[in-house]
Parts: sequence; C-alpha cells; structure tokens
Amino acid sequence: MTDIAPVLANADEALPQSLERLFDLVRIPSISTDPAYKADCRKAAEWLTKELNALGFNASVRDTAGHPMVVGHHDGAAENAPHVLFYGHYDVQPVDPLNLWENDPFEPAIKEIAPGRKVITGRGTADDKGQLMTFVEACRAYKAVHGGLPIKVTILFEGEEESGSPSLKPFLEANAAELKCDFALVCDTGMWDKDTPAIAAALRGLVGEEIVVTAADRDLHSGLFGGAAANPIHVLTKVLADLHDETGRITIDDFYEGVEETPANIKASWDKLGRTADTFLKDVGLSIPSGEQGRSVLELTWARPTAEVNGIIGGYTGEGFKTVIASKASAKVSFRLVGDQNPDKIRENFRAFVRARIPADCSVEFHEHGASPAIQLPYDSAFLTKAKTALSDEWPKPAEVIGMGGSIPIVGDFQTFLGMDSLLVGFGLVDDRIHSPNEKYELTSFHKGIRSWIRIIDALAK
Amino acid sequence: MTDIAPVLANADEALPQSLERLFDLVRIPSISTDPAYKADCRKAAEWLTKELNALGFNASVRDTAGHPMVVGHHDGAAENAPHVLFYGHYDVQPVDPLNLWENDPFEPAIKEIAPGRKVITGRGTADDKGQLMTFVEACRAYKAVHGGLPIKVTILFEGEEESGSPSLKPFLEANAAELKCDFALVCDTGMWDKDTPAIAAALRGLVGEEIVVTAADRDLHSGLFGGAAANPIHVLTKVLADLHDETGRITIDDFYEGVEETPANIKASWDKLGRTADTFLKDVGLSIPSGEQGRSVLELTWARPTAEVNGIIGGYTGEGFKTVIASKASAKVSFRLVGDQNPDKIRENFRAFVRARIPADCSVEFHEHGASPAIQLPYDSAFLTKAKTALSDEWPKPAEVIGMGGSIPIVGDFQTFLGMDSLLVGFGLVDDRIHSPNEKYELTSFHKGIRSWIRIIDALAK
Repeated sequence: MTDIAPVLANADEALPQSLERLFDLVRIPSISTDPAYKADCRKAAEWLTKELNALGFNASVRDTAGHPMVVGHHDGAAENAPHVLFYGHYDVQPVDPLNLWENDPFEPAIKEIAPGRKVITGRGTADDKGQLMTFVEACRAYKAVHGGLPIKVTILFEGEEESGSPSLKPFLEANAAELKCDFALVCDTGMWDKDTPAIAAALRGLVGEEIVVTAADRDLHSGLFGGAAANPIHVLTKVLADLHDETGRITIDDFYEGVEETPANIKASWDKLGRTADTFLKDVGLSIPSGEQGRSVLELTWARPTAEVNGIIGGYTGEGFKTVIASKASAKVSFRLVGDQNPDKIRENFRAFVRARIPADCSVEFHEHGASPAIQLPYDSAFLTKAKTALSDEWPKPAEVIGMGGSIPIVGDFQTFLGMDSLLVGFGLVDDRIHSPNEKYELTSFHKGIRSWIRIIDALAK
Repeated sequence: MTDIAPVLANADEALPQSLERLFDLVRIPSISTDPAYKADCRKAAEWLTKELNALGFNASVRDTAGHPMVVGHHDGAAENAPHVLFYGHYDVQPVDPLNLWENDPFEPAIKEIAPGRKVITGRGTADDKGQLMTFVEACRAYKAVHGGLPIKVTILFEGEEESGSPSLKPFLEANAAELKCDFALVCDTGMWDKDTPAIAAALRGLVGEEIVVTAADRDLHSGLFGGAAANPIHVLTKVLADLHDETGRITIDDFYEGVEETPANIKASWDKLGRTADTFLKDVGLSIPSGEQGRSVLELTWARPTAEVNGIIGGYTGEGFKTVIASKASAKVSFRLVGDQNPDKIRENFRAFVRARIPADCSVEFHEHGASPAIQLPYDSAFLTKAKTALSDEWPKPAEVIGMGGSIPIVGDFQTFLGMDSLLVGFGLVDDRIHSPNEKYELTSFHKGIRSWIRIIDALAK
C-alpha cells in the first residue's frame, strides 16, 4: 500500500523534465509506413528501452521482420495486485502535406493557443508518444517517491501501429507466455471532452485494401485514343461511386451482416452527451452528416460501419495539363466495422464487387492493408470500475464509458492471442489533429494524464 | 524551277548529319508545362534560331509572357509561288513515370526494333521535334544544292503547344501582318500507316478543366470522423462517374449540341480503311471500344466528342496506408469536341454539372486549361491536291485524306487570327507513344519525311 499524495506532488514538480523527455522522443521522426524512416523507428525503440531500464524495468529492443518492439518487465510491491500489460506505439503517421504545418512536426514546442490553454505541438504528440509517456512518467514518479511500483507491470511498445502492425500477431503468438497478464492498459484513445475523462468500451474494426486498375499497357494520347480506349480512372471512379447508394448505405453484398441496431437506451444515453452534427462537424468546417441518413453523428461514428476512400491517384497530377489516358489508376479504401462483421468476408465481397465492375479488357489487382474485427468490452469489470473512480477523482467531471470510431486492432489481438481484455484510457481531444498537419496534445492531457495513471495504478494495487 | 533529284540525293547523303542535329535538339529537355524547365525551353528556341539563320533565314527568338516563339523568313526563287507559313512546336510533354523508359528520354538513340526497322528513341522525337526537323532538313538540302528555296517560307516554332499555348493567340494577333501567308503547313500529325502518308482534314477540338473539391478544412482521421464527415474523394468520384451513362454517352446538359451524324458515304470510306477495334486497340493491350456503343473506332476517335479524366489525386497516395479523410481531391478533365460544339458552352455546362453534385457543405474550384473548337478543312483545295500527289510519289502507297482525333488548336487560330487555312502533313505512326514513356519516331518517318517536304516544296513552286 503506497501513499499517492507525494507521488502526485512529484509528478507536478517534475513536469518540466517530463516534457523534455517527451520532446526528445517526438524529435525522432519514427514514420513507420515510409521505409526512409526505418532507422528512426529503431532509434525511438532504443530511446524508450533506455528510459525503461533507468526506471528499474528489465527492458529490451526486440527485433521483428519489421520495426522492433520494446518489452519491459517490472515487479510490483503489493501482494495480490494484478499484473498489467501497458501498451502504446512509438511510430507516427507521415507528415505530408508539410507546407500546412505551422511548426516543424519534429521540433516540438509549447504553444499557448488561448489564454491559459497550452498545447504541445508536433507529430506524435497525441498519437501516441505523448500518451504512452504519461504512463512512463507515472512510473517514474512512483520510483522517485517509493522506489518502485505497487503492481506488476509489463510494457509493450509497438512500432508499426500506423502501418497495419504486420509483425504484431506473430510477436504476440511467439511471446504469449511472457506477455500474458491479467489485463491490458491501452493508452491510445481520448477524453470525452477537456473536462471529462473516458474509458472506451466499443471500438470499430478496420479492413484496408488497395486496388489498382489497369487498362491499356501504356499511357495513351487522349486525342488518338480518346473515345475508343478504356480509361482506368473512369473504371475506378465508377467502382468507387457505386460503393454508396443515394441514402449513404454501402452496397457491397452482405456488407451489413453482423451489424445490429444500437439498443434504444444506449442511443438515448449517447444523445444526452450532446454531440450533434452542428457541434462535431462545425469544428472542421462541415455541417451535414455524410453517412447513412437519419442517424446521429455518434451513431454514425461509433456504431455504424463505413467505406472510405483514403487515397486515389491516376494519370497526370503535376502542374499544368497533360492530355493522357493513363494505363493505371489506384485507390486505397478502408472499411470501419462494427458488431460481428467479418473482416475476411468484407474483403472478399469487396473484391467481388470491384471485379464485377471491371471491363473484360481491363484488369485489377488487390493489395491487403490489415484487418481487425470490431471490439465490445465488458462494461462492468472490476478493473473498469476502479479506473473509472480513479479518473473521476482526477478530472473536473466524472468519467464516461463510451464508444470509439477508430480501430485499435491490438485490443482484438490481446483477446485472440493472450486471452486478455483491455482497459482503454487515453487523454487525447477530438481536435488534436492526429494524422493531420499541426497535431497537438494538450499540456493538461499530459500533466493530468500522468496524475491519472498514478491514481489508476494505486487503485489497481488495492 | 528547280531540279529535285539532286536535292533528294543530298538529303539521302546528309542523313547522318541530319540525325545528329535532331539528337542535339532532343537532348534539350524543353518540357513547357513544368516551370523547372523554363531555361531549357529558351535554349531549344535559341538552338532552332541559330539553325535557321545558318540556312539563310532571317530568324530570331521572340519573347512572350511564357516560353518564346521562333520566327524566321526566307525568300523564294520561283515567281508566283505561294508564301507558306510552316508551323511546329519545340516543347515536349513531361516524362513521368520515368522508371518506365527503357532509354533516357533526353539521350536519343537509334534502336532496331525489328529486322530492318529502326526507330529514334526519346521524348519529342515524334511530337514534335523530329517532325519539325524534317522540314528544316528539307530546306537545308535545297540550300545545299540550289542555294535557296523555290518558295517564300516563313517559319513559326512555338514552345507552349503541350501546355495550352497561352501566348499564341496574343502573338498571332500582335504579329498578324508579319505572319499572314497564303496558307500554313502544319507538321504535327501522322501517317495513315507506315506505307501510307496522310493529310488530315478534320480535327477534334479540346476543352481542358481542372476541378478541386474541398470538404473539411483539414485532413481528418477516418476513425474519428468516418461515417459523419464528407469525403471529397467520394464527392469527386460520384461527379466523374456520372459523366457517362450506361451506353457511354456523355450526360452533361446540351453536350451534343453542334454534333452531327457522320454522312453514310464518309463512314463507308472510313470502314474501307480497315481500322477496327481489334487492330487498333489490340496494339495497346485492349479489345473493347469504351465510348458510345454501336460506333466504329474511327468514328469514335475522329467524329465523336469525348469526356476523359486525364488525372486524379486525393488523400494519401504514398507507400503503405493512411486512414485519412482528405480535405481536398482534384481531377483534370478534358473534352474532345467535334462539329460545331462550342468550347465555352461546354465548359459552362460542365461546371454547372459539377456544382449540381457538390454537397452544400463542400465547395469546388475550377481552373481553365485551354479551349479550341473542332476544325473541318476543305477537301479540294489546290495545295491539298499538290501535296497529295507529292506524298504519293514518295511513299509506297497513295496518300489518304483522313480525320484526326487529336486537337491542333493552331489550325483554328490560323483561321481566326490570320484568315488562313492549313495543310496538315506529318509522319508519325500510331504506335509512336507520344505523351507516353518510350516515345519514338521511325527512322523512315524522318528520312522520307525530309524527302516528302522536298517534293511538296517543289510541287508548290510549280
């Protein structure tokens, strides 16, 4: 049993040093999807390993076929306290378009964006370096005051979360005995609002696909061939335009198999949260919900599946104009899944949908970019209840148990490979611009995030 | 009156030197649409000016707001011979994707692609540097044998043909008195086949448009916002997919205004030429005509209008995957026009078509990329008849008078600004891969092209 008051005080006093360490980590451009940053990903893993070892963890860089993992173990002081696995990812999204950043994405800074409201700017500050460091800094405060942790902790940091986690499943499988804990703490989610902490209990799944349509075996002059030769951009735009009907419903065969209507009482509790099209979309310059008609934005983003084109390219896209009929055109398409939708079936039916729309003299290739089912966690576990109380003690308003529109495949993988549920706690805000230029993390998220973990660790030890 | 036998012999003997000069010109990467090559465009203009002055022309580089023109004048020996304006363009298309080129696009070479069939490889060899040099070399052979030309010649070389010719109209207008001739010789077209020369009497027009759709004011995470926020790629693909109906007909309001059905006798003469979907499309790896159903490929490419997407881009298009909803997506779209279709009306109706499909909380911008109406030249002018005979004398088969799918806006501009018809003679082949990687020009096209101009100049002098 530990006294947390001095631990919280230590975290408050050490905040400037905690920030310096976060800045050091953000300065490493660990973009996992781009092979040019391979060495930087390893550098981030090595940096974290060194930090953990300095805190009394037995930590090491663990090689994979892709970017390395970091695994560290720390014993706990309290008897009968749970053994938890803390998960975060040190890799970050690409930073293009770079010209839209107001600050260097890899030179973090503190910025006062409104009176009394300070943020930490830079790629990865919110997703996920700032978040994982809240836990590391909580451990540091415990060590500084009490010489160690009250609960047994294993840490797993991944370096491929932003690029489909190709090495994760094999790694969990190969190291299941070492990594199996009572449950996992996953810090890659957000607050409900700046005063209200949140625990996410439902997460959408994800299927990523890339399609490449080929028509002629070379680029053609649109004067010589236009009107007679197939244009792969036309083929592709027809396919993609067909994905949604006039009501926003996705038209792929059996797409809604496994999707259940949200119970009325859950919808009612969501309605009370007050997130409307007006408040949610206005902030990004929009006003009209674009998905299935007649549903609230919370339902659309938490409880309904989607099909989104994340990227498209074909033909001449440089300055000026080129009257060319391209040989190839391609698109990256992702599906957010809910309920019991089967990722493999979705992929298979999508491919059939595309193939049915390819002219006989054209061809199509598919490239897989990850798959994970949706997740529904128990609303009433003991550890969820403890964490909810701990969070409510730290923040101005009580914690909410919510859904999440994003995918955190690790949660499903922990269930599948380690037979372990997760507790999803994070301190991001909806306007953190993760995956966009000018990503930021609230200074309050970082500071009170550290304090929240101190309280959660203490609650779990009791 | 000159004797052409020694002129033809001189052209044959000097072929190696003629090729060297063409190679020098091809080595200059005069890509007009890309500002990075501005100095190279000027270099090409200066190179040509020097060549023309060496042949007894009074030539100079003439500045414009964009890339410069080259204008040269040469007197003729024969009395009552016509004064002709020869037109070509020294600028070339971009070379991307560079990795598909088998040879450096700007290091020309002779390649034997089949026993006895040699080609000149490199960007611009066929479009249009190789073609314009056939005329320059014909003039050189005349000068070498007879000390000058039998007809009065003005030469106009443009440097913006591949980028919408923004400076051309003002230049023609400002220099109309200097440039007005009896008619123009335009060398930017092709042979019917490798044995059959052709004179093009009908050309499709062109309207170029770029559209940029904006949804949210920043890139969004597709987990947080997917299903609720508008995706500009979805908006754009819906717009583009709507451009054609199930039968390949273009659906823009009043699009077919001014399009007349081709007379049955013309269609019959085209049918005799033997270009079918099978022969024409097979060569580029296709087999099914993609445009309006129930029409031959010659009709589709010579006598029917088109709407083609020449480029599209939006969202993440790099390696790997990024679950982003883009803020913007854009496409370059061109329309080939026939008959009396009005370019301005087509543009206006296209913009209305797009605007009608943009959600109320999204926006669209348009950028204009040139416009020219279709052209129909007289089939029976004296100069066309003379040229037809001259060409038939040089090549294995008699010359054909044909249509062209491509646009040569200069022909309309010569009519509008100089009140002058054009004679369109060129020596390209359909498989020259102009605008594509591995552009080539047949060695025979170059050699017999030079000889053809010697014969045409002689015929016109009589």
